Amino acid sequence: PHNPDISTNTSMLNVHLVPHTHDDVGWLKTVDQYYYGDRNNIQHAGVQYILDSVIDQLQQDPARRFIYVETAFFYRWWKQQSQNTRRIVTQLVNEGRLEFINGGWCMSDEATTHYSAVIDQMTLGLQFLNETFGECGRPRVAWHIDPFGHAREHASIFAQMGYDGFFFGRLDYQDKARRMKTKEMEMLWRASESLTLPLADLFTGVLPNGYNPPEGFCWDQSCNDAPIRDDPDLEDYNVDEIVQRFLNAAFYKTNHIIMTMGSDFQYENANLWYKNMDKLIKYVNALQAKGSKVNVLYSTPSCYLQELNLANLTWPLKTDDFFPYADDAHDFWTGYFTSRPALKLYERLSNSRLQTCNQLEVLSGPKSTSGPFGEGDSDTMKRAMGVAQHHDAVSGTEKQHVAYDYARRLATGWAHCEVLVRNSLAVLSGSESPRVFCENLNISVCPLTESSQKFSMNVYNPLGRTVSWPVRLPVNGSLYSVTDTNGKAVNSQVVPLSKSTQQVRRNRGYAKGELVFQVEAPPLGYTTYIISILKDEPPASSPKPTATRSIQNKVHAAESRQPSGAYIFRPNSSDPFVINKTAEIQIVTVSSTVQEVTQWFSPWVSQVVRLYEGHSELELEWTVGPVPIADGLGKEVITRLDTDIESSDYFYTDSNGREVLERRKDYRPTWDLKQTEPIAGNYYPINSRAYIKDDKHQLTVVTDRSQGASSIYNGSLEIMLHRRLLYDDFRGVGEPLSEPGEFFDGLVARGRLLLTLTPPNMAADVHRPLAQGMVLQPLLSFQDGTPLANTKLEFTGLQDALPPAVHLLTLSQWDKDSVLIRLEHQYQAEESKTHSQPVTVNLQKLFSTLEVLGASEMSLGANQWKEDMNRLQWNTGTKASKPLLLSAKDPSPWEVTLNPMEIRTFLLQLACGFSWKRVRCRFRD
Amino acid sequence: PHNPDISTNTSMLNVHLVPHTHDDVGWLKTVDQYYYGDRNNIQHAGVQYILDSVIDQLQQDPARRFIYVETAFFYRWWKQQSQNTRRIVTQLVNEGRLEFINGGWCMSDEATTHYSAVIDQMTLGLQFLNETFGECGRPRVAWHIDPFGHAREHASIFAQMGYDGFFFGRLDYQDKARRMKTKEMEMLWRASESLTLPLADLFTGVLPNGYNPPEGFCWDQSCNDAPIRDDPDLEDYNVDEIVQRFLNAAFYKTNHIIMTMGSDFQYENANLWYKNMDKLIKYVNALQAKGSKVNVLYSTPSCYLQELNLANLTWPLKTDDFFPYADDAHDFWTGYFTSRPALKLYERLSNSRLQTCNQLEVLSGPKSTSGPFGEGDSDTMKRAMGVAQHHDAVSGTEKQHVAYDYARRLATGWAHCEVLVRNSLAVLSGSESPRVFCENLNISVCPLTESSQKFSMNVYNPLGRTVSWPVRLPVNGSLYSVTDTNGKAVNSQVVPLSKSTQQVRRNRGYAKGELVFQVEAPPLGYTTYIISILKDEPPASSPKPTATRSIQNKVHAAESRQPSGAYIFRPNSSDPFVINKTAEIQIVTVSSTVQEVTQWFSPWVSQVVRLYEGHSELELEWTVGPVPIADGLGKEVITRLDTDIESSDYFYTDSNGREVLERRKDYRPTWDLKQTEPIAGNYYPINSRAYIKDDKHQLTVVTDRSQGASSIYNGSLEIMLHRRLLYDDFRGVGEPLSEPGEFFDGLVARGRLLLTLTPPNMAADVHRPLAQGMVLQPLLSFQDGTPLANTKLEFTGLQDALPPAVHLLTLSQWDKDSVLIRLEHQYQAEESKTHSQPVTVNLQKLFSTLEVLGASEMSLGANQWKEDMNRLQWNTGTKASKPLLLSAKDPSPWEVTLNPMEIRTFLLQLACGFSWKRVRCRFRD
Repeated sequence: PHNPDISTNTSMLNVHLVPHTHDDVGWLKTVDQYYYGDRNNIQHAGVQYILDSVIDQLQQDPARRFIYVETAFFYRWWKQQSQNTRRIVTQLVNEGRLEFINGGWCMSDEATTHYSAVIDQMTLGLQFLNETFGECGRPRVAWHIDPFGHAREHASIFAQMGYDGFFFGRLDYQDKARRMKTKEMEMLWRASESLTLPLADLFTGVLPNGYNPPEGFCWDQSCNDAPIRDDPDLEDYNVDEIVQRFLNAAFYKTNHIIMTMGSDFQYENANLWYKNMDKLIKYVNALQAKGSKVNVLYSTPSCYLQELNLANLTWPLKTDDFFPYADDAHDFWTGYFTSRPALKLYERLSNSRLQTCNQLEVLSGPKSTSGPFGEGDSDTMKRAMGVAQHHDAVSGTEKQHVAYDYARRLATGWAHCEVLVRNSLAVLSGSESPRVFCENLNISVCPLTESSQKFSMNVYNPLGRTVSWPVRLPVNGSLYSVTDTNGKAVNSQVVPLSKSTQQVRRNRGYAKGELVFQVEAPPLGYTTYIISILKDEPPASSPKPTATRSIQNKVHAAESRQPSGAYIFRPNSSDPFVINKTAEIQIVTVSSTVQEVTQWFSPWVSQVVRLYEGHSELELEWTVGPVPIADGLGKEVITRLDTDIESSDYFYTDSNGREVLERRKDYRPTWDLKQTEPIAGNYYPINSRAYIKDDKHQLTVVTDRSQGASSIYNGSLEIMLHRRLLYDDFRGVGEPLSEPGEFFDGLVARGRLLLTLTPPNMAADVHRPLAQGMVLQPLLSFQDGTPLANTKLEFTGLQDALPPAVHLLTLSQWDKDSVLIRLEHQYQAEESKTHSQPVTVNLQKLFSTLEVLGASEMSLGANQWKEDMNRLQWNTGTKASKPLLLSAKDPSPWEVTLNPMEIRTFLLQLACGFSWKRVRCRFRD
Repeated sequence: PHNPDISTNTSMLNVHLVPHTHDDVGWLKTVDQYYYGDRNNIQHAGVQYILDSVIDQLQQDPARRFIYVETAFFYRWWKQQSQNTRRIVTQLVNEGRLEFINGGWCMSDEATTHYSAVIDQMTLGLQFLNETFGECGRPRVAWHIDPFGHAREHASIFAQMGYDGFFFGRLDYQDKARRMKTKEMEMLWRASESLTLPLADLFTGVLPNGYNPPEGFCWDQSCNDAPIRDDPDLEDYNVDEIVQRFLNAAFYKTNHIIMTMGSDFQYENANLWYKNMDKLIKYVNALQAKGSKVNVLYSTPSCYLQELNLANLTWPLKTDDFFPYADDAHDFWTGYFTSRPALKLYERLSNSRLQTCNQLEVLSGPKSTSGPFGEGDSDTMKRAMGVAQHHDAVSGTEKQHVAYDYARRLATGWAHCEVLVRNSLAVLSGSESPRVFCENLNISVCPLTESSQKFSMNVYNPLGRTVSWPVRLPVNGSLYSVTDTNGKAVNSQVVPLSKSTQQVRRNRGYAKGELVFQVEAPPLGYTTYIISILKDEPPASSPKPTATRSIQNKVHAAESRQPSGAYIFRPNSSDPFVINKTAEIQIVTVSSTVQEVTQWFSPWVSQVVRLYEGHSELELEWTVGPVPIADGLGKEVITRLDTDIESSDYFYTDSNGREVLERRKDYRPTWDLKQTEPIAGNYYPINSRAYIKDDKHQLTVVTDRSQGASSIYNGSLEIMLHRRLLYDDFRGVGEPLSEPGEFFDGLVARGRLLLTLTPPNMAADVHRPLAQGMVLQPLLSFQDGTPLANTKLEFTGLQDALPPAVHLLTLSQWDKDSVLIRLEHQYQAEESKTHSQPVTVNLQKLFSTLEVLGASEMSLGANQWKEDMNRLQWNTGTKASKPLLLSAKDPSPWEVTLNPMEIRTFLLQLACGFSWKRVRCRFRD
């Protein structure tokens, strides 16, 4: 192939053709089906062939470029390549012909992911690229071309990871129309109200055409656009027509324009694309000789970004986020905030388990992965969590069989971790007795506790400070003795098993009651409780229910021209249907340990209201399903909390579980909203909390998973819990969201909301630790009988509990001799009188059992030394609306100071071995 | 990629994987749309990419093989390749990694093509391959995997072209079942009853699976079969299952089996195929270490054929043909024998024009292609005829827009030839006066003859002897003088224009009558007639019609579960509907020149019966259409000739216009037929003739195009003339065969049948020359006024007329100094008392104006010296049923003897220039 000399030309309009493929890490097919090109009857897509083909085509002309995004796929492919192919690919990367963009394990969802898992999946991908290609493999640009709305916390994370810019494809159609008109498609996003400038500033560009090529220029095998027919001897010569059509493209702010030449799973036969783009470049640029001022070139997002930067313009500033996303007046993509609630919970729990697994791998050393219980690892779980963050995974927008595949991967990941955890606890405790994990405690099933007369329970605490959690164990006795490691009795009580739990567990367990008590475990460590039966008789059954008017659960019915589906929320009416104005109520128990009230709104909606000893929050355990559809109506079940709080139109939702954004009904901060959907258009994602407040009170709800929420009325806060729908919503998934349960009925979902009512200025002090305790659950494991004599019953990995403001976000083995640690200031600026202050931690004095020999600070993604980070600078032309925050400095090399919302990432050297050479070995002192 | 050492193993079952693509030279898309990959919404197919991809993949592993078949596509691709790519491809060809198979311009249809055009299109493709790649590019195997039934004449042609064997995919389902059972899928086809053994013997194999891969092993991008998933770390590892499934393949006669790994337009992304086949070979052959006796290898049909030959077995003998083709009990592919009758006629006329164009290029030298009328060429027409022979072209089984494209190509080809012919006639006649061709004489439209008072008509005769044809010129006078070159008056008559012609021509012409007279022109030459008007008054109109009972035209109505369509004939009932038992009759004229009777059976079916002065044959000119469909019934119009001949169940049809085969109702010579379609199952293709006979009489019908025909009753012969249908027949074309006419009604077709009634032993003497005169029509051109004084009014290219048995099949410029000539013995053995004898022609004394310096005999395809032909030998184990025919020898080097049905091909050197070196220059004396 012939290629002209391709480069930008400052005196012309430069059209950057960006050849790319968008490879969903699961959607209509599983990630492995996509990789292999299996089940092509569902969707033609085979990533192995895409990479084969692109590498082949790149070699045929040095002018050609390609970007690759999803490391989960690239990793699979790389594993199977010969040394020769690897050498070729490395050269292509070194020459910038193949460039990694984004580079996370997947392209994460932004509405339903937790920042902890997002940072992990990005790290997993970036680590692979760094280890495989070094600096030339480091992505410079974040690239979220498909996610359905964009979270500010994601932008903040990308900025802290060192990305120079961020491009995405989807934003509200009204917002896009305005930005096109005012040339504000490219901007600077200031993604944190707490972090020191410009730590969270991220140049952000909206792509002109989603992530697709301009109309008529799609030359993939999956497209039907006319190829360039340039043989004058054959019929239908069309070069002139194509060139003319191309020159009609719209203009942006600079004399550069980006064109995404690719789409979903394209480039499986890259020749089609490159052959026609070669011709396009040739014939369009040939017109320059006749005076044309258009210059077309192969490019990449980072090349394009660099040109924008060189243009030295001022850019508009953006400080809110891009939720909710609507692609038309009645098409708000706010349903997926709640879609597949069970998968959303399982993903969140899996994150907790992975953190525990990572920590124990570090704390107990090499025996954790190869010990008395066999070979275990954390990698399987890391990769499973990596794919689960994908924007068609935890989002709930995949096909049913793909949702099962994600869950199966998480289960397999945990199975590998279980071995690691068993080995690790054996090392730390000195006891190799068998250890049982109970997966189904949420439906009160645990064969050991149901049958054992005496057993011990190990409680591992993944948090950096002691936290108290209530536990509920299925039992068949009516009275138990619970003692801690000091032999001290712990208050406990057996409460009868609720009717809804009996319904849900079916015949998998036979417990008649739940033994309820509070547990505490030392920071980053475990303790042990000994439980023995005292009264081996069934617990008293619950008192008879009484009907009363009470808290209301509601349901949106969904049928209309644009139906609700996996993505879209489109209720029939602005007023939800009340499921039942009265609820049957059972006051289960009132004791010092726990007070419980069960409410039945219908045979398929119930709720337990609990107040635990020593806890100020109210727990609402909701059980919804199987959602009936015999009436021909899909249903979207919400719980609405109506209060006297004078919240007016305002409410607050978190972004990926971290910083909180103010929301206002029927309003967007950056454009004059024409509201077309009074309910769906006011829904926002919540990942761990939402609140409403007035001067005196703040009602905060902490959730156990991501959900959709809104405040439609003054003083009211509603959360969508579950959805079951009868129609596909025409966004590609091709299935109605109707999750099967067991026995062919619908899925039953259960979850918990924690409610706290505080003065507004005290709220963060309560909800921040409460949410961390919800995100990182204690890991319970059981051993039958009495622990052996020499068993170490208690352990802590820390010298001291971390300061209240500090959260141990990451503790993970990096390589043989080093570990990755992330410390996080978990308070926003100004949200807590006591905690929104800089706080200092001494890295050398952190751990009780690990000797830290050195520490090097890294970017948030751990693929660059912090001191090497050198991001592009952008000018907004406006002063910061708030005074520039000055970050507190570190007092000494070992003492690191965290400012509000800051996350700092370190590689700690635990022993000085040769494997440290992976990156330059720089000791802090 | 890794590939084991791949070769056959005599102690194992060798599975020959034959990677191939089947690229229709037009079908659902035009040939150029297929080449470019345009209109992929109709069908995903882009041949340019197939060749790109295959060449790329072949380079990646020397074990990989590919065959390519259709030279029309390869030629397009080759033209656009760089020198470097051409060098690589040449090396792949030289190493046998890319092998050309079949190699004609297209894969011709076998039922509706004429041998003259088939030989031409094969020659065109083979010539390109020979010039481009030399001996290594010579195809050894004929490969007709898709045509819908197989003609014996095709097999004979392939044998004479030097092919070692022939493979095809489709045969009658009953035949296939029997052959599978008896292991007779491979055989020796003795394809001529006249030619000396083994001239027309062709080893023939039926492919086990059509031309598709075994079920479950289709790895093209267009297939959905599971890829081989061999990464044990990923989900759904399936190597063991795939290998096991592969080993269950059926066996053939030898320990070799061929598997066609490809299908329609496959290998656009060849990586998918090769990557998975690499794995298949690797994992299946790996089992040999565990005792498996299966050996898989990349192969080609010629490699496979060679192994069969080495097996040294005896093979069953086949002497009839493979018509008709049925793929199920009610699915006889006998409709396409007649589909698109107008295209079929236009293709046949175009052959005649091309031969004329070729001849004149030779006879008048270089000025023919660059002369007073501009640049002309015969290549465009050759290529247009080349694609028109495709099995979805002249067959009538393409989509409507593709049929238009074929016709347009022929028209463009003729436009190029017209310039050549104008130049040529200017050279030969010495007159550069403008010359007009009248394309629409069949509907009596010719502006010059309609208006001119005096004009001359040049009649070019492409045959090797003088033949007399009737001509009919549209005129407006009632009396004309017609004189020949000697000034001698020629009998002529003006007959009134028939009503049906008036209907059909609509407002394109305004002639009121047709001037009818007989013309004769010298062999391979022209003469000139001068026509002047004598009475400038309108011809008398026809007498009033009278009703009478007469010859019946009939129609089959077509509606049923398997409907009739472009391919399939499935009448509603065994009895056709009689269109009208009485016909309106007009006795137009009874004179010495012509006697005409017009019959009207309905407003859309009429027929003119003519008997010309000096001709013994009866001409039936039929006009059918627009076929009405308002009654919701598709219709297939037949004409049935009922006679007293005691033909019993027997009738006779030609094969591609040459040898005649005996047919018998409800009977197949090679298996015990279970007849399931009493009409459609007895239809056979006729290309130029059909007959019935008894001891005394033979009724022979000579046709102007290919049609379907049968004899359902004793003494009856029926021919299908036209078809218009309402449904698609589910064989892929996706359109009902309902050809539009003008003004949104259906197409009107018109044609001629020539009937002769003779004693059987005299019949060939009549129908052979009659058919040649029908195939090679005189070319008429007109000049207004009186010819200029020095105009040479008559010319012959031959020294003498050829002997009656000899037909000049080909006379075509080959390169600057040489011409290709084919002489054909046009009688079968024993069919003519006088002509079925060897006949000798002196090559040096053939031409009147060309000096022949040398002659080298070649294979029929002209891509090999005759003396180098060395075909594989095959043993049938049976004696020939007829005594072995001994061919007469040539008396001297210049004198060549033709035996019955023999075609001999020579390259004649006309001047000894350097271009002769193309092939070795071997003079005969």
